[in-house]
Amino acid sequence: MSNEILNYDKVAEASLAKAQRDGAETMWDRRAAQKTQCGFGEAGVCCRICAMGPCRVSPVPGKGAERGICGANADTIVARNFARMVAGGTSAHSDHARDIVHAMHGAKAEGPFKIRDEAKLRRIAGEWGIEAADTKETYALAHELADMALQEFGKPFGTQRFLKRAPIARQELWERERIAPRAIDMEVTTLMHSTHMGCASDYESLFRRGMRTGLSDGWGGSMIGTEFSDIMYGTPSARPSSSNLGVIDAEMVNVLIHGHDPNLAEMVVLAAQNPEMVELAKAKGAKGINIVGMCCTGNEMTMRHGIKIAGNFYQQEMCIITGAIEAVVVDVQCIFPALPALAKTYHTRFISTSQKAKISGDMYIEFSEETGLENANEIIKIAVENFPNRDAAKVEIPDIKQDTMVGYSVEAIIDHLDAVVNSQLEDELGTVKPLTDVIYAGVLRGAAGVVGCNNPKQQHDYAHVKVMEELIKRDVICVVTGCAAQAAAKAGLLTLEAKDRCGRGLLEVCERVNIPPVLHMGSCVDISRILHIVNLCADVRGIDPALLPVVGIAPEWMSEKAVSIANYVVGSGINTYLGVIPQVLGSPNFTKLLTEDCQEFIGAHFVFEKDPIVMVDKIMEDMEEKRTALGI
Amino acid sequence: MSNEILNYDKVAEASLAKAQRDGAETMWDRRAAQKTQCGFGEAGVCCRICAMGPCRVSPVPGKGAERGICGANADTIVARNFARMVAGGTSAHSDHARDIVHAMHGAKAEGPFKIRDEAKLRRIAGEWGIEAADTKETYALAHELADMALQEFGKPFGTQRFLKRAPIARQELWERERIAPRAIDMEVTTLMHSTHMGCASDYESLFRRGMRTGLSDGWGGSMIGTEFSDIMYGTPSARPSSSNLGVIDAEMVNVLIHGHDPNLAEMVVLAAQNPEMVELAKAKGAKGINIVGMCCTGNEMTMRHGIKIAGNFYQQEMCIITGAIEAVVVDVQCIFPALPALAKTYHTRFISTSQKAKISGDMYIEFSEETGLENANEIIKIAVENFPNRDAAKVEIPDIKQDTMVGYSVEAIIDHLDAVVNSQLEDELGTVKPLTDVIYAGVLRGAAGVVGCNNPKQQHDYAHVKVMEELIKRDVICVVTGCAAQAAAKAGLLTLEAKDRCGRGLLEVCERVNIPPVLHMGSCVDISRILHIVNLCADVRGIDPALLPVVGIAPEWMSEKAVSIANYVVGSGINTYLGVIPQVLGSPNFTKLLTEDCQEFIGAHFVFEKDPIVMVDKIMEDMEEKRTALGI
Repeated sequence: MSNEILNYDKVAEASLAKAQRDGAETMWDRRAAQKTQCGFGEAGVCCRICAMGPCRVSPVPGKGAERGICGANADTIVARNFARMVAGGTSAHSDHARDIVHAMHGAKAEGPFKIRDEAKLRRIAGEWGIEAADTKETYALAHELADMALQEFGKPFGTQRFLKRAPIARQELWERERIAPRAIDMEVTTLMHSTHMGCASDYESLFRRGMRTGLSDGWGGSMIGTEFSDIMYGTPSARPSSSNLGVIDAEMVNVLIHGHDPNLAEMVVLAAQNPEMVELAKAKGAKGINIVGMCCTGNEMTMRHGIKIAGNFYQQEMCIITGAIEAVVVDVQCIFPALPALAKTYHTRFISTSQKAKISGDMYIEFSEETGLENANEIIKIAVENFPNRDAAKVEIPDIKQDTMVGYSVEAIIDHLDAVVNSQLEDELGTVKPLTDVIYAGVLRGAAGVVGCNNPKQQHDYAHVKVMEELIKRDVICVVTGCAAQAAAKAGLLTLEAKDRCGRGLLEVCERVNIPPVLHMGSCVDISRILHIVNLCADVRGIDPALLPVVGIAPEWMSEKAVSIANYVVGSGINTYLGVIPQVLGSPNFTKLLTEDCQEFIGAHFVFEKDPIVMVDKIMEDMEEKRTALGI
Repeated sequence: MSNEILNYDKVAEASLAKAQRDGAETMWDRRAAQKTQCGFGEAGVCCRICAMGPCRVSPVPGKGAERGICGANADTIVARNFARMVAGGTSAHSDHARDIVHAMHGAKAEGPFKIRDEAKLRRIAGEWGIEAADTKETYALAHELADMALQEFGKPFGTQRFLKRAPIARQELWERERIAPRAIDMEVTTLMHSTHMGCASDYESLFRRGMRTGLSDGWGGSMIGTEFSDIMYGTPSARPSSSNLGVIDAEMVNVLIHGHDPNLAEMVVLAAQNPEMVELAKAKGAKGINIVGMCCTGNEMTMRHGIKIAGNFYQQEMCIITGAIEAVVVDVQCIFPALPALAKTYHTRFISTSQKAKISGDMYIEFSEETGLENANEIIKIAVENFPNRDAAKVEIPDIKQDTMVGYSVEAIIDHLDAVVNSQLEDELGTVKPLTDVIYAGVLRGAAGVVGCNNPKQQHDYAHVKVMEELIKRDVICVVTGCAAQAAAKAGLLTLEAKDRCGRGLLEVCERVNIPPVLHMGSCVDISRILHIVNLCADVRGIDPALLPVVGIAPEWMSEKAVSIANYVVGSGINTYLGVIPQVLGSPNFTKLLTEDCQEFIGAHFVFEKDPIVMVDKIMEDMEEKRTALGI
């Protein structure tokens, strides 16, 4: 595995060689130390839900124990474990969104948390039925909307407000199948209950409850996270940025922001612009302060401010190994607990900031919405003052960076589409119709959302990039978020020039609309943007999204959030392709439910396929079948 | 293990021999099939939180991998796993409570869900600050209170209303340590988030967040579950019942109710009294309909209606093995998924009823608060009509039953205490002062709450009974709930005659107050009754509960609910003794935090001790230390 990675990724090669010289431990060392991973866990047939266990049943029927002490068989154990991954993922996304809404709840005109996209505020307030949404005082309206949004997490009755964005056909399906999600926290709690010892054993029932919970993430927490971030920090528009470890600047104070929630990162970026801090940096011998981003925080900040992208998930250690990072500032999710110890191998300070994710090993500076800018100022000061501690002998920044375009929110895409609306045909402005037109016309064969993490079970970034390269070659437009987006950025796929790597149809669309063939739509919560645009497309055509030649893909996923996402994407009628096989194979029944049977009642299903080329072949077949069914 | 159990428990011996003859599989067969349980899981050092894993670190430092792929070490992995058990347990208890509140939300005078303890309704409405709680129309008030209670699950701001029942000292500690629980579902969701890949790694922080979640169970979900059940179904008062498998009646239609939520069980009991059904039973050749209970449903129904207790958790299969059960009716939690298959070995119908816990293998009749009595009627009819299918050759009911007293709610205990108030000293009526008086005087050395499940890691019921026998011998009064209560019932400890097994002090108290030395306080959610009475005692003395010679004990726990309970009991200042070791020993740091260090900031800690006699020795030492510190 290690050699394959090195062949593919020159940055990783150099970085890991340096790590070895510096005596720094990386995830590859730890992966090797794990040796063979537990086969029971891999198959999903290990149950640790009560203390009579741990129990494990044989993933091979007829060999070994077939039931846990309580009688739970492989179907039940696998289904419960899978459901609990959904619960974890939904919790993470939605609890992030809660913090965004809290910031908006306390927003004021004098800042630092304030309303930057007032039009979107008024639009969503109107969508949610607030009276006088057009005329109410901005902050009164923002606070009222925030109050309503907080209710989406805990209201005792009713379903998620944003469900109404879906075409009627889909809304009806959710009602019929009893998977229309209610309050987000309630869905998590009842799912944790249903998976408790001695509760649900019926695997299909567990699957449905998990899907409902996942839907409360996609159409609830994640969508709220996205939309309310836009209201507060601005709706992204297309802009240039740069990516890969080469964006770390040897002559600057480098601060790596890593994690997910824009509340912290926005304040850090603001603090780094503080002239006093810039002066201090110069006094310490640096040319200035360079903020670089990683993972979803990186995506949030690049698409709103053009902040450079240092890399994605698997590169979090490599950043520190450059020896040129003065501080790593983190909030929640996807942060290796290994980082503080690694930072100590260098001069780097590691600063964790979230009550929800205190990471031991170095500094903890608690960030709150009340004191956000002060906290950020303190953090920047620590970074700047740490600059002189840098050991020049240990600095080695790979000279690799890639220009990139970022920031394609739904609004930004529609803006681009408006430029090509045929005014002679009296087509409306402000819709996604031109996009569906080229799909219906066959110029594009379909569209794919490529998302998710890195995972050592796949060759890092290779699966992401290969899938996208193959898709655009075959005239499938891609939208990307999360670490997949950063893989695309580093591979140069998020550039206008990437049109030359496309099939003829997509090339033409890229030229006419002036977009890259792979569109950066943001962070992982921004998969809600993908949901939204797919549903707008379906709405334009008056059909259920399940009928469109559109797929979701997570080539290298690893987190519970990805399981939640896969559930809500499938639950939204979009076939979802996973390049890392979920831990379900110990139950052939549950596996079949995911990959075949759920098609019948949800109109979509999961596909497991590790090989990116084979995956793309399957996707093309899927899309052509959809096209045939639509008669296009 | 198996032999030990048989030596102790004659019922089990007969029952398991019959199972073997009948070709029926039991938990002991499955326990044996599991062979050696996974050492990583047992030590808590297996991590399945993301799909880079499963990872496992060595429970022995220096041997094998010390960190998972992300860098999580044993401390982090153990702390996350432990916290997630709290999340599961809190979810289960609280989601049960939610259903009770929903039933009250739809209650009406004409029933079947109606207000039976109007005084309690008005008392709690007053406690929660509802205006005109004394005069408002009953159902308007009930619906208003139910609305408020539903907010306790999801309100965006504020902490649990019932926290105000605790002495000020404890409330201040919760605030200071930032563990005052907020909305229940929010606590679960944020805890699931904090334990997500790449979030909290600091084990103490994870512990505190888990404790806050646990406290939202004890002072939130469980307390709401108890109090609102009382309002709807009546506050329990002391009454006689009978226990053990011998309560199954060979000449009757026997219906076993098993699970947790009184909503279903109340309707089943009501339906069984339907003269039409009784007539039908007679027409089918039975003498009538005999409802017997098990687990927490059994406790709920015995303490309000005197319904006979067929047994506790480990006897759920034995009931069916008698061959004399026409239907097993279940709702949620602690129900072996093995039961439907076992039922098929006999004529027994297995009926699952809860959307939250669909159990595959036989019938599913969905129960809802809207159609509750109809659902119950259908269920009873199925049972009655199944009577002729009974195979007489397979019927063998152990001739063992034990009279018992049940139903000691806080109110019932205070009623008993009132009878011994010394009116010459002008002591107030309606308080727990007489109880604290005998403790302070040294007549009783202390009080113990004995709770929890059965677990094959302990000899079934033996640890429960031994602990209680030893404690009452040493003048420690016991209050019991859950399967511990049923173990006590079967052992004859819940009788007035059990006074003869007590030390002199407790004997005298039992005689004067006319109570058994071990008081049945109900189901597992009713541990909130224990919290309540302990806090009333502390309040009477104006001290923090942590100063009282009072302990919590779970000799044979197995479920996540028990982990949640242990957290909120310790979090309430009460040392908690666990007879099954939680899966934490892989982290000596986390273990020390639980068993020692948390004492410093919570004022209580966990004790792990498998041997019931040694446990009681430790408890006595603990109590005497508390007494000395109090100067009593």
